[in-house]
Amino acid sequence: MLGGGFIGDFYIHALHGHRRPDRVQVVYSRSESSAKKVAERHGIPHWTTDMMEAVNHPDIDTVVVALPNFLHLEAVRMAAEAGKAVLITKPLGRNAAEAKEMLELVEKHGVFHGYLEDLCYTPKTLKAVESVKNGALGDILWVRAREAHPGPHSDWFWNKELSGGGAIIDLGCHCIEIARNYIGKDVRPVEVMCWADTQVKPIEAEDHAIALVKYASGAIAQFEVSWCFRGGMDLRDEVMGVEGTIFLNHFLRTGFDMYTAVGEEDYVAEKAESATGWLFPVGDEVNSLGYDFMFTDMFNAMDEGKQPMETFYDGYVVNAIMDACYKSSESKKWEPVELEDWRGSDEVSGGPQLIEFDKDHYLIKEEMIPDGTVKLILKDKVTGEIIQKIK
Amino acid sequence: MLGGGFIGDFYIHALHGHRRPDRVQVVYSRSESSAKKVAERHGIPHWTTDMMEAVNHPDIDTVVVALPNFLHLEAVRMAAEAGKAVLITKPLGRNAAEAKEMLELVEKHGVFHGYLEDLCYTPKTLKAVESVKNGALGDILWVRAREAHPGPHSDWFWNKELSGGGAIIDLGCHCIEIARNYIGKDVRPVEVMCWADTQVKPIEAEDHAIALVKYASGAIAQFEVSWCFRGGMDLRDEVMGVEGTIFLNHFLRTGFDMYTAVGEEDYVAEKAESATGWLFPVGDEVNSLGYDFMFTDMFNAMDEGKQPMETFYDGYVVNAIMDACYKSSESKKWEPVELEDWRGSDEVSGGPQLIEFDKDHYLIKEEMIPDGTVKLILKDKVTGEIIQKIK
Amino acid sequence: MLGGGFIGDFYIHALHGHRRPDRVQVVYSRSESSAKKVAERHGIPHWTTDMMEAVNHPDIDTVVVALPNFLHLEAVRMAAEAGKAVLITKPLGRNAAEAKEMLELVEKHGVFHGYLEDLCYTPKTLKAVESVKNGALGDILWVRAREAHPGPHSDWFWNKELSGGGAIIDLGCHCIEIARNYIGKDVRPVEVMCWADTQVKPIEAEDHAIALVKYASGAIAQFEVSWCFRGGMDLRDEVMGVEGTIFLNHFLRTGFDMYTAVGEEDYVAEKAESATGWLFPVGDEVNSLGYDFMFTDMFNAMDEGKQPMETFYDGYVVNAIMDACYKSSESKKWEPVELEDWRGSDEVSGGPQLIEFDKDHYLIKEEMIPDGTVKLILKDKVTGEIIQKIK
Amino acid sequence: MLGGGFIGDFYIHALHGHRRPDRVQVVYSRSESSAKKVAERHGIPHWTTDMMEAVNHPDIDTVVVALPNFLHLEAVRMAAEAGKAVLITKPLGRNAAEAKEMLELVEKHGVFHGYLEDLCYTPKTLKAVESVKNGALGDILWVRAREAHPGPHSDWFWNKELSGGGAIIDLGCHCIEIARNYIGKDVRPVEVMCWADTQVKPIEAEDHAIALVKYASGAIAQFEVSWCFRGGMDLRDEVMGVEGTIFLNHFLRTGFDMYTAVGEEDYVAEKAESATGWLFPVGDEVNSLGYDFMFTDMFNAMDEGKQPMETFYDGYVVNAIMDACYKSSESKKWEPVELEDWRGSDEVSGGPQLIEFDKDHYLIKEEMIPDGTVKLILKDKVTGEIIQKIK
Repeated sequence: MLGGGFIGDFYIHALHGHRRPDRVQVVYSRSESSAKKVAERHGIPHWTTDMMEAVNHPDIDTVVVALPNFLHLEAVRMAAEAGKAVLITKPLGRNAAEAKEMLELVEKHGVFHGYLEDLCYTPKTLKAVESVKNGALGDILWVRAREAHPGPHSDWFWNKELSGGGAIIDLGCHCIEIARNYIGKDVRPVEVMCWADTQVKPIEAEDHAIALVKYASGAIAQFEVSWCFRGGMDLRDEVMGVEGTIFLNHFLRTGFDMYTAVGEEDYVAEKAESATGWLFPVGDEVNSLGYDFMFTDMFNAMDEGKQPMETFYDGYVVNAIMDACYKSSESKKWEPVELEDWRGSDEVSGGPQLIEFDKDHYLIKEEMIPDGTVKLILKDKVTGEIIQKIK
Repeated sequence: MLGGGFIGDFYIHALHGHRRPDRVQVVYSRSESSAKKVAERHGIPHWTTDMMEAVNHPDIDTVVVALPNFLHLEAVRMAAEAGKAVLITKPLGRNAAEAKEMLELVEKHGVFHGYLEDLCYTPKTLKAVESVKNGALGDILWVRAREAHPGPHSDWFWNKELSGGGAIIDLGCHCIEIARNYIGKDVRPVEVMCWADTQVKPIEAEDHAIALVKYASGAIAQFEVSWCFRGGMDLRDEVMGVEGTIFLNHFLRTGFDMYTAVGEEDYVAEKAESATGWLFPVGDEVNSLGYDFMFTDMFNAMDEGKQPMETFYDGYVVNAIMDACYKSSESKKWEPVELEDWRGSDEVSGGPQLIEFDKDHYLIKEEMIPDGTVKLILKDKVTGEIIQKIK
Repeated sequence: MLGGGFIGDFYIHALHGHRRPDRVQVVYSRSESSAKKVAERHGIPHWTTDMMEAVNHPDIDTVVVALPNFLHLEAVRMAAEAGKAVLITKPLGRNAAEAKEMLELVEKHGVFHGYLEDLCYTPKTLKAVESVKNGALGDILWVRAREAHPGPHSDWFWNKELSGGGAIIDLGCHCIEIARNYIGKDVRPVEVMCWADTQVKPIEAEDHAIALVKYASGAIAQFEVSWCFRGGMDLRDEVMGVEGTIFLNHFLRTGFDMYTAVGEEDYVAEKAESATGWLFPVGDEVNSLGYDFMFTDMFNAMDEGKQPMETFYDGYVVNAIMDACYKSSESKKWEPVELEDWRGSDEVSGGPQLIEFDKDHYLIKEEMIPDGTVKLILKDKVTGEIIQKIK
Repeated sequence: MLGGGFIGDFYIHALHGHRRPDRVQVVYSRSESSAKKVAERHGIPHWTTDMMEAVNHPDIDTVVVALPNFLHLEAVRMAAEAGKAVLITKPLGRNAAEAKEMLELVEKHGVFHGYLEDLCYTPKTLKAVESVKNGALGDILWVRAREAHPGPHSDWFWNKELSGGGAIIDLGCHCIEIARNYIGKDVRPVEVMCWADTQVKPIEAEDHAIALVKYASGAIAQFEVSWCFRGGMDLRDEVMGVEGTIFLNHFLRTGFDMYTAVGEEDYVAEKAESATGWLFPVGDEVNSLGYDFMFTDMFNAMDEGKQPMETFYDGYVVNAIMDACYKSSESKKWEPVELEDWRGSDEVSGGPQLIEFDKDHYLIKEEMIPDGTVKLILKDKVTGEIIQKIK
């Protein structure tokens, strides 16, 4: 386990929970006190402040990278060269070039690689994606993925050089990959339109951004990310298809409402901004945020010699889309997604399908009106004229 | 009452409800059968298929225009020239030029004019806007207004020439004006980025569109409109401010859930796409969609010689923003909002406010962490370096 | 208007809202300052501290009783003897005997009488009851009506002699009558089982109670009332029928969520217990609590010479059920509802209906199981044996 | 694993999920085909139709009883006599006498025993109970636990002799134990009032029941159970304390809403009654229903030589409360809970606590009213008179 911060802690919690057999053997942190503390808290046999030592430790077959973004490349290089499997937190790189380098490293060295995109593994997302694959929504038209909260925990996130950007790099990577899972990973992301601004925080990076990602199928993936949100963590997805709709709320409204006039002794709820009044706890955060299913998939895939659901290649695509977002927020126009290494399909959608009504008309809409009759909106095949008609 | 269609019916329902004294005296419709039917259903003394006759009827002091978009200008001209007060359904014009002509007509003739933007008068919106004005959210950063359903009732909506466009013209006008109420009508809409596509329906106009409207204060208003939504009518607003958040759901989830295995005899719920299973009726649609408060404001303003909350000028601003949307969806870049007649402020925001922490640092974030200590993210005033510190 | 307190104020607000023509001409209050203040605030021409003067005022044709419970009988007697229509707030009496006396007074004098049971007129309730009448839920099995908040506004509520009881008299009357509307007013309430306790407040009356009311149809109406609830006003109904289910939330979760870190200047939300954090305002309280539809029904009925939906007779039935509740909470067993004057049906239900499956079996349940087959649970008509079978 | 039915399958799913090391070695079912099928599906090495063989199998150290209620005693006796740890599904017995016999068996033989009351282990329940223990709600006043669905899967449930009852035995056991966790397992359940009826199904047992369980602290636990509910599985808990409130929804509204006009190929959602329209799937049913945390607690306790959270003693208390419920539903009055073996406290609450306001008054209520002043409701210590006062 490389990293003794917030995310590393969450990972160890998930890895060691529910009697799982996979154990963290060594923890590395840049700070000695932090490394020691994490090792003690979780009963991890070894700790070190030397990354190379951690990676090459003989008890280690898998390296989990839970480090700040600017250390990803170095850590992946070490792990790949040591021939160890490597699982890495999001985003893969600070940009597509870095991501590509990491992808090439793991592939060159032939090591197992997993992209720890937990939000694609939330129980709701997994079931919703399955329903979409089963056809419950028909062709996907639009996905909205939103992540907004009052800002990250550690200093390096706020520094553009170290992290690679602001809210887009921190949160957009989740949203982009969630949408890819619904739209289909095989479908090419074509171009991007992005607004990004620094509205509240005295920083250089964006603290709020919205983007539209257009796919070759015609589907639009919209992401909304912010470090200025008030009220907790807003983590929602919406999916529209020709035949249906999905709304997911992962955090703030999950069927757990608590009002307390007095708060709790010795306890402050995570990410909640208040300790009294109406609060909305999540029952099992580790499971709800996807960590349980993510590590199950990673280690099962490793055992079975298969690829996990999320790989370095996915991380690379996400970085390429984010690069286009930053470019678009500067140029103020749609920017193409540059993917030198595209492994999916090159099919492009032909637009809406015409539904034949009779030999002269296409059907636009059929609706029952209050008096019980059925009203049709039809289009003349030749003239293009639109008429209404009672069935 | 000019117009015997769906919206005219809704208006009469609201106008004649709850023992209100204001009565519709004449109904005009292009079709005789429709005019007759409406007059009978609502006990209206006169009907006609001659618009001029309706407008100039001696019992009439106020003309309510509930006609298709392409007839708005003609109707407004007649009413203004007859010196009658005129209330008009949304959108004001098919474009800003038409809207400006109508605005000039009512102002030249000095007649009372109201813009029947019902969704700015929903009880939730009125209360939420009041809270925003009372400072509950601090400065407004972002508004999302969404209206999506399976498509409009009448043929003319689907014809770009007659309506002026597609889902933007039909639904975007609502969303734009809702956002203006939160952000402040005095704040100038500066530029627009819009995606619009025809994803499902065999029509020329857009059946799905998303736009970002940037205001001089730095606030972003996002609208999402669609005629391809499945599951009823999705009518939601979200507002983010520096100090708070508002979520409104006007239609699909308002605290009324019904499951029926058998449906109801002789009745089909409006806009609902199914008659059995889980349904989500709205208690009082007329009130929830804003008609009650809208007509109360209009007639009270008229009686008191004041302007109503929504006037033709608002309709004109909305049309100007929609014009920019159509332009942007073609040019694929941000387009300026052209407002020849701007009556608001020209102030422009100076960006984020710096919060002084001590003589050397600005405060970025303060957060209590699980062990109860308070963590600060600070920025050095001189070097710009970002550090974290335990309080 | 008799009464210058909280409820009288709410009534006047509703009566004078939305350009309604019916105006309050005289306001009576026991306190001069309060009478004056209400008259000024609402522009009411006359005020008095002499109830007789108010009732007999020549401009008055309708007396609205918004007084504490212990003054209801006196006010109704005056109004009835003066030959004026009388509308009275809930509960009708402090017990069934008082209620019966009032019912007899208005009937003897032949005056119009309405029972101002606002919660039976909420938009959601009206629509839900209509769906039930249309058969959407089949036969009604169970109704839960719940009203709970942190306690009433005025001193007299807390005094058992003046009010007639505690949370049951204050809130149970609403819940009982809501349930009657779903189950059918024609169906006889047979017996009652009630728990009532004083859990928190230093008073003699109950501050928390739960009761089951059994109807002749076999339906059970459950009410839950409390003055100890924390978090605002919990106002919910649930209805179960053989074919469906209804859940209504009238107040705390209606699609309006607001988070504010700072609160609002000069404003505190009604019944909300906190001014910051997550708050759940109601858009239009007057409409949502039923006042609009209630007064519309009352005055329309008066104009048309019909009975309103809720009359003194309904108030009497409710009081009789509450009497049985108090008796049961003492005796700790089911107590019959004593209705000397029953005007509904005397039909009693024969229990569950047998659904014939084939000549030897009744059908208990049919369910599709995950592998797609249909499983049946059947009962042998002769032996009564229960078996399962794959269709 | 004794039992090859629905619940056994769910257990194996949970036990074998997420790389857990505890494996089912032998599966027993009364039917050969079912035993074989389960063994194959889950890769279990051995299967048998001989319960004794399964229990005494050398690879087995723990017996999991997932059998119909009427086989519990026999299975527990076998396991206890074989000296094996025993985990048993709910309810423990068909009545308290059976439960007590099983409790005595496991204690006499000194074997580890766990009561598989999964709904006390749902993530939401665990976190909510922790908040209650941390004082967030103050003293608990009332718990409502509700479980309702369209009826169980297997024939034996519907047969009173085999199961021990109807909806109370099937679902009430969950609700009772959930409430005990909030109120405190140390607090004695004193008496019970219960209504039970057969409203819809042609069976002898109750298909709908409601009960109030009174505890020595004065708290009331209310359960509502039904096999007649339409719309899926209604699984909700509500908790009221002096200082706060908790609402939990475990199944039908958890932040996952799906509308599908077409349904899914080859898939029908579990317990959902419809395949199209608005559906409300649960992301991870196994986790949400408590199986993950339940088995983790059971096996961790076993490894650490401790008692799990839920033991046979808890099962016995639940059965005793259900016995009182059946008695009360016959006698139509409150019935004492007979607990020959009570291991908790015998403390009884002294009723509401008086809050001193000044030397002459107790405080009943303090409330801010719309004009910003604070209104107090006070009680005279000597006369008991209740007055209101502006602070």
